[in-house]
Amino acid sequence: MSGLRLEAQPVMGLPELEPGADLAGLIAGSGVAIGAGDVVVVAQKAVSKVEGRLRALAGVMPSAAAEELAVRLDKDPRAVQLILDESTEVLRAERGVLITRTRHGYVCANAGVDASNVPQGTVALLPEDPDDSARRLRASIAERAGVAPAVVVSDSFGRPWRLGQADVAIGCAGLEPIDDRRGEADAGGRELSATELAVADEAASAAALVRDKAGREAVVVVRGLKRYVTEADGPGAAALVRPHEEDLFS
Amino acid sequence: MSGLRLEAQPVMGLPELEPGADLAGLIAGSGVAIGAGDVVVVAQKAVSKVEGRLRALAGVMPSAAAEELAVRLDKDPRAVQLILDESTEVLRAERGVLITRTRHGYVCANAGVDASNVPQGTVALLPEDPDDSARRLRASIAERAGVAPAVVVSDSFGRPWRLGQADVAIGCAGLEPIDDRRGEADAGGRELSATELAVADEAASAAALVRDKAGREAVVVVRGLKRYVTEADGPGAAALVRPHEEDLFS
Repeated sequence: MSGLRLEAQPVMGLPELEPGADLAGLIAGSGVAIGAGDVVVVAQKAVSKVEGRLRALAGVMPSAAAEELAVRLDKDPRAVQLILDESTEVLRAERGVLITRTRHGYVCANAGVDASNVPQGTVALLPEDPDDSARRLRASIAERAGVAPAVVVSDSFGRPWRLGQADVAIGCAGLEPIDDRRGEADAGGRELSATELAVADEAASAAALVRDKAGREAVVVVRGLKRYVTEADGPGAAALVRPHEEDLFS
Repeated sequence: MSGLRLEAQPVMGLPELEPGADLAGLIAGSGVAIGAGDVVVVAQKAVSKVEGRLRALAGVMPSAAAEELAVRLDKDPRAVQLILDESTEVLRAERGVLITRTRHGYVCANAGVDASNVPQGTVALLPEDPDDSARRLRASIAERAGVAPAVVVSDSFGRPWRLGQADVAIGCAGLEPIDDRRGEADAGGRELSATELAVADEAASAAALVRDKAGREAVVVVRGLKRYVTEADGPGAAALVRPHEEDLFS
């Protein structure tokens, strides 16, 4: 038995993405082989762009709360206002860092509001509903390519006790987000302890490793996860959000 | 330009590992091609086993603190004592979960003390010094195989606000643990924001995706990260630990 194999390949040559661009068409027509058991990992910035989730800072009126935070954190108050608009709760605001829980339930810095790779004076927000974005993209790719690979919308998140960022899935369609092995036995027949692999997050991380330094490759095809690909879209990345009542670290 | 490619392949057919086993020899002699630019990702349990980091519960005398925690968390007090011995600080002890900071500085559940895949009545501890384990393994593989791939010792960690576990590097030799892109420009010439990719963690995650359900494949070769492989062993996974004074979530 030769075992499992994983492969990640970026989709090269995609143009700069504008609002309304046909991302599915670009992916399906890119020439990269995409099979039904593959996972197409799309960086959230690309999804945000084509969905028009861009905001001009000039049009934002910062509230008093945003102004106060901006002074404390040395940030643009208009960007802070957008961060607050995208959030349900501020977890930490100190040492130049603003960590919130987004409307989707994700805990990350700046609610994913990001000024890089977008026109000067604008920022990109996270997709409104990344799971829905993943489902629609999956359906569109299926329409054009005749196969329905899984789709993951990924983003780079910091971690509370580790330096550096790792990619996770913020949207997911057609992929079991978690491989739940609890209750199964190990090689010696003993029950596996607390082993629930966040497959969608690890696929996002694998994909991140083949993007170039300037992050131009928004789309990566990951092969070798066919056993986790489902015909149904499934619960999405929402299934990776720890319920608030189980949260020990707010 | 065809872009970067990532590939992960498990090393099949390794025997059940005993204390003192020649892991480097088993890897070098396994028949799997290992090049100088490859990353050999080894699950920490395998390293712990060959290093004899096993403890018989019968020989452990629980302290009063361990007994009290054990009652509260419905855990074996002897295992709790071992967890406390491996830790410098308890962060959370509630709802059946014991999260501590290990001696190495890692924040995880149960200080990595684990009863699965080891003989009944024993538990495995994390390696004493996983970076040192990675360095020694790297040197041993180089001796036998004539090439010095990078080596990552990996473990599965839970995340505070996400369900499921993802693999991270707890030991690392010959691999830049973080790809620090801060200060670089994006495609439009604007500075990339806070972009430090935890390469070693993402390599660990990619490797986890090719281990089978029973977790038998302790060793995975990851190819495609040559640009991060260094001749020097480098700072190791210790470079991924957020300094205590920057920690916002203890």
